[in-house]
Amino acid sequence: MTPEEFRAHGHQLIDWIADYRAGISKLPVLAQVEPGEVAAKLPASAPETGDAGRSLVSDLDEIVVPGLSLWQHPGFFNFFPANSELSSVLGDIASAGLGVIGLSWESSPALSEIELRVTDWVRQLFGLSGDWRGVIQDTASTSTLLALLEAREHASQFSMSGGGLAALDRPLVAYLSRYAHSSVPKAALLAGFGTDHIRWIDTDETFAMRPDALAEAIAADRAAGRVPAAVVATCGTTTTTAMDPLAAIGEIARAEGLWFHVDAAMAGSAMILPECRHLWEGVELADSLVVNAHKWLGVAFDCSLYYVKDPAHLERVMSTNPSYLRSAHDDDVTNLRDWGIPLGRRFRALKLWFMLTAEGAEALRARLRRDLDNAQWLTAQLEAEPGWRVLAPVHLQTVCVRHEPTGRDGGALSGEALDRHTRAWAERVNATGRAWVSLSTIEDRWMVRISIGALETEREHVETLWQEMRAAVAEPSAPEIRSRS
Amino acid sequence: MTPEEFRAHGHQLIDWIADYRAGISKLPVLAQVEPGEVAAKLPASAPETGDAGRSLVSDLDEIVVPGLSLWQHPGFFNFFPANSELSSVLGDIASAGLGVIGLSWESSPALSEIELRVTDWVRQLFGLSGDWRGVIQDTASTSTLLALLEAREHASQFSMSGGGLAALDRPLVAYLSRYAHSSVPKAALLAGFGTDHIRWIDTDETFAMRPDALAEAIAADRAAGRVPAAVVATCGTTTTTAMDPLAAIGEIARAEGLWFHVDAAMAGSAMILPECRHLWEGVELADSLVVNAHKWLGVAFDCSLYYVKDPAHLERVMSTNPSYLRSAHDDDVTNLRDWGIPLGRRFRALKLWFMLTAEGAEALRARLRRDLDNAQWLTAQLEAEPGWRVLAPVHLQTVCVRHEPTGRDGGALSGEALDRHTRAWAERVNATGRAWVSLSTIEDRWMVRISIGALETEREHVETLWQEMRAAVAEPSAPEIRSRS
Ligand SMILES: Cc1ncc(COP(=O)(O)O)c(C=O)c1O
Ligand SMILES: Cc1ncc(COP(=O)(O)O)c(C=O)c1O
Repeated sequence: MTPEEFRAHGHQLIDWIADYRAGISKLPVLAQVEPGEVAAKLPASAPETGDAGRSLVSDLDEIVVPGLSLWQHPGFFNFFPANSELSSVLGDIASAGLGVIGLSWESSPALSEIELRVTDWVRQLFGLSGDWRGVIQDTASTSTLLALLEAREHASQFSMSGGGLAALDRPLVAYLSRYAHSSVPKAALLAGFGTDHIRWIDTDETFAMRPDALAEAIAADRAAGRVPAAVVATCGTTTTTAMDPLAAIGEIARAEGLWFHVDAAMAGSAMILPECRHLWEGVELADSLVVNAHKWLGVAFDCSLYYVKDPAHLERVMSTNPSYLRSAHDDDVTNLRDWGIPLGRRFRALKLWFMLTAEGAEALRARLRRDLDNAQWLTAQLEAEPGWRVLAPVHLQTVCVRHEPTGRDGGALSGEALDRHTRAWAERVNATGRAWVSLSTIEDRWMVRISIGALETEREHVETLWQEMRAAVAEPSAPEIRSRS
Repeated sequence: MTPEEFRAHGHQLIDWIADYRAGISKLPVLAQVEPGEVAAKLPASAPETGDAGRSLVSDLDEIVVPGLSLWQHPGFFNFFPANSELSSVLGDIASAGLGVIGLSWESSPALSEIELRVTDWVRQLFGLSGDWRGVIQDTASTSTLLALLEAREHASQFSMSGGGLAALDRPLVAYLSRYAHSSVPKAALLAGFGTDHIRWIDTDETFAMRPDALAEAIAADRAAGRVPAAVVATCGTTTTTAMDPLAAIGEIARAEGLWFHVDAAMAGSAMILPECRHLWEGVELADSLVVNAHKWLGVAFDCSLYYVKDPAHLERVMSTNPSYLRSAHDDDVTNLRDWGIPLGRRFRALKLWFMLTAEGAEALRARLRRDLDNAQWLTAQLEAEPGWRVLAPVHLQTVCVRHEPTGRDGGALSGEALDRHTRAWAERVNATGRAWVSLSTIEDRWMVRISIGALETEREHVETLWQEMRAAVAEPSAPEIRSRS
C-alpha cells in the first residue's frame, strides 16, 4: 500500500474511530453472534489479488463490530475496565506507523529511553520509592511469570545455570491466596513448580489471605524438607477486589527469605490516589510488582507495568548475549530484551507517554474518583433495598452482589434455587444490551460482579444498570421454572 | 480526550505517518544519538495538568524520530526485515481504536474467529497440510518458549500436574544447533532444563545442524540415563540463514519420541513461494512451528504465528478455567487464552487480515522474489570482485561477507587485523546514514551481514550499498592504524 493510499484510508479510519467512540452507547454492549458466525463471513483462503481500494471501514461495520462485545461501552461492567483512552490510541498509532523494533538500545534508542522514563513517571504517581525500576510487558500473566522465574532462580541458587530444576534435591514451593488470579498458578506451573507445590492459602472473611495460615504453611513445608520459594499477594483480587495484607505477608517473606511478588494488576491503578495507598501498605517489602496500565488507568492494551527492585537479578535470569545482538554501547545502556521474554519489542511507551501528557495526572485522579463514587453510590442503593446483599467490602470499584428474595415457602431463597435466580436475572440484565455484568462464583455459589470504571461510564449509566437490575429480579423467573419442570 | 480532539490529532498523525514513510529515505537510517540524550528531553515527572492541544507530531519530529534507527528505511540491512506494511498498520490502528480484549471467545468473538481464520489462510499460503492450527503470539521468543514447555510436559508425562520438574528422577535434555537463535536456549533455560541439559549440536560447512551429531548426542544422553525431550531445528538461522535438514532431524525426533519444534521465525515467510519450499522439506514431521509474520512478510510488529499439530496438548499445558472466566459457550468455542501465556489478548488478527486483503498473495510473492533477486545480484557482484568473500550459501536474502584484502606483506589479511578491517569498513558504511549493515561473528571472526528485504529496498538501494561498501574498503583504515600503535 502506498503512503497516498494509506493517507486516504487512514483519514477514513480516524473518522470511523471517532464516530464509533462517540456513538458507542447506542450499540449493544454484548456481542449478538453465535459461534462460527463471524468466521463464516470470511473467505476460506487469502485472496490472490489485492484490493487496496476495499473499504476497511465497511469490514469493520459489517463483520467486526457486530461480532464484538464492546469493552469501551459505558454499560461495560464485566471483567475489569480495559480503558483504551483516545490519547493512548494516538500513541499506539504512532508506534505502528513508525514501525521500529527494540531489540537492544541501539536498535531503537528512543524506545528504550522513553520506556524507562515513563514507567518511572508512573512509579512516582503511585507514590512508590525510588528503589523500583519499571519495564513494560504485554500482560500481568507474563509479568507474574517473570516474577516466579525470578523467584525460582533466587531460591535455587541459579539452577538454570547448572542442572536445571530436575537437579534440585528438594522441591520449591509457591504460596498464593485462594482468590489469586488464575494467571498466578498458571505462572507457577509454567515455571515448573508443579501442582503439588502450590499452596492455596486460606482467606479471612474479607477474602484476603490470612498471614497466620501462610506462616503455618511455610513452616509445614520446611518441616517436610521442601524449600519455600515465593509468595504472591494480590492487591485487589479479581473476584471481589480483596486486599491481601501486604505488610504482614511481606514481613513473613522477608523473615523466611521468600521472593515476594505483588499482583496489583487491576487495583494498582488506584494508587495514583493518595487516599487509596493504605490498601497496599507494605508494598515496599516486595521484590516485584505488576500493575496493568491497560486496565483502569486507561492505556490501550497491551501495557502491563512490571516493577522490580533488583534489575540485575532480572537480567541474570533473562539475558542472552550472542554476537549478532552485541553493540558498541552495551555497557552504557539498558537492553530491555534482558528484562523480559521477547527479543523484539514494540514501542509501547508511546501510548503511555501520550496519555499522561495529554490527560495529565489530575484528570486521571478525577476520573478514578468518579468511579469510586459511583461504586459507593451503587453500594448504598443495594444496602438500602431489601433483598439485595453486597457480598464483599467495596474497597474500590467492584461490587459483588446477590439478590436473595423470599422464596415461596417464606424462607430466603438459597442453594441451587438461589443460583438459578442469580443466573436468570444477570442474563436478563445482559440481554438488554445496555449493561454487561459478570456471573462469577464465590464460595461455590453464583453471584453477580459489577466492575465499574469504563471511561464513558457516568453516574447515569450506573443508574440505568440499577434500574435494569431491579427490573430483572421483578420478572417471573422463567429459566428457574423451566429447570424445575 | 474527546472523540473530536482525537479526530483532529488523528488526521494530523495520519498525514505525518504518510509523509514519514514517503520521505524516509532522506533521513539517516542509523540513530544519531548518544545514550541518555532522548531521556533528557522528557521531564523527570508526569505533568499534573494535561495538554490535549499539545502537538504530538512535533514530539515525534523533535524527540522520537531523531532517537530512532529506522527499520522501514530502504537502507536498512541490519537484523532482519521488520516490515510494517501500511495496510497492516491500518489494521493495527483499528485494533487500538476498537479497544477490545480477547480473554475468551465470548469477550470478543470476532477477535478469536478472525484469528483462527487468517492464521489458517497463512497456513495455506505456506503450503502446509491441514493438520496444523495457528495462533498469534507476540514474538518467536514466546512461541519457542511455548514449544519447549509443551515438550517438557510431553516428556515428563505432565510433571506440572504432579511434583513439577524437581520431582523428576532423570533430567530432560533439549537439542539445538550451534547457530540456533538466542531465544532457543533462553526458552530452554526458562522452561527449567538447565544449561547442563542443553546440547549445542555441531554444524556442517553450510552452518546447518548435522543429523549424525544429533543422533550421537541423543544416544549418549540415553546411555547416561537422561531423557532426550526436544529438538529445535532452525529453518533460516539468524547468522547466515542456514537451513537445518528438517527431514533428517524429524525422522530422528520421531524415532526417538522427541518433541520437534521448527524455528522458521525469519525464513518461514519465504514459504509463500513454492520454489523455496524444498528448504523446509520435512516440516510436516514437526510438532510445532513458528514463523514471524512481523518480519519479512510485512505485518506490523507484533505478529508471531505459532502452529501446532495438537492444540489439545497446548491447551492442557496452558489452560486455567476459574469461574470468572467461564462462559455459556465454553464447549463450542476455542478460548485462545489457553493457547498461550497471556490472558488478555489484543486484536492482532486485524493487521494480518487487512494486509492479506489489501495486498493479496500475488503481490507478497512478487515482493519477496524481488528481494531474492536483489540478494542474488549482490552475491554476483561480490563473487566477481577480487578481495570479497561470501561466507555462506545465500539461500534467501541474507548475504554474509568479508573483504579480505592483501596485507602489506603480500599475504591475505587475517586474524585480528582482518577483524579490525571488517569492523572499520562496516562502521564507515553505517556512518554514511544511507545503509545500516550488521557486524556479527562467525567461527569467532567478525563478518558483515546484509539482510535484504525492507519494503522500500529496491535494486537501486542495493546498488548504493554496494558502492558504499567499495568506497569503505578503499579508504585508509584509520581505526586499524590506531589500534596498532
Ligand atoms: C488481579 C489480576 N491479576 C492478573 C490479571 C491478568 O491480567 P492480564 O490479562 O494482563 O494477564 C487480572 C485481570 O484479568 C487481574 O485482575
Ligand atoms: C531464527 C530466529 N528465531 C527467533 C528470532 C526471534 O524473534 P522474536 O523477536 O520474534 O522473538 C529471530 C529474530 O530475531 C530469528 O531470526
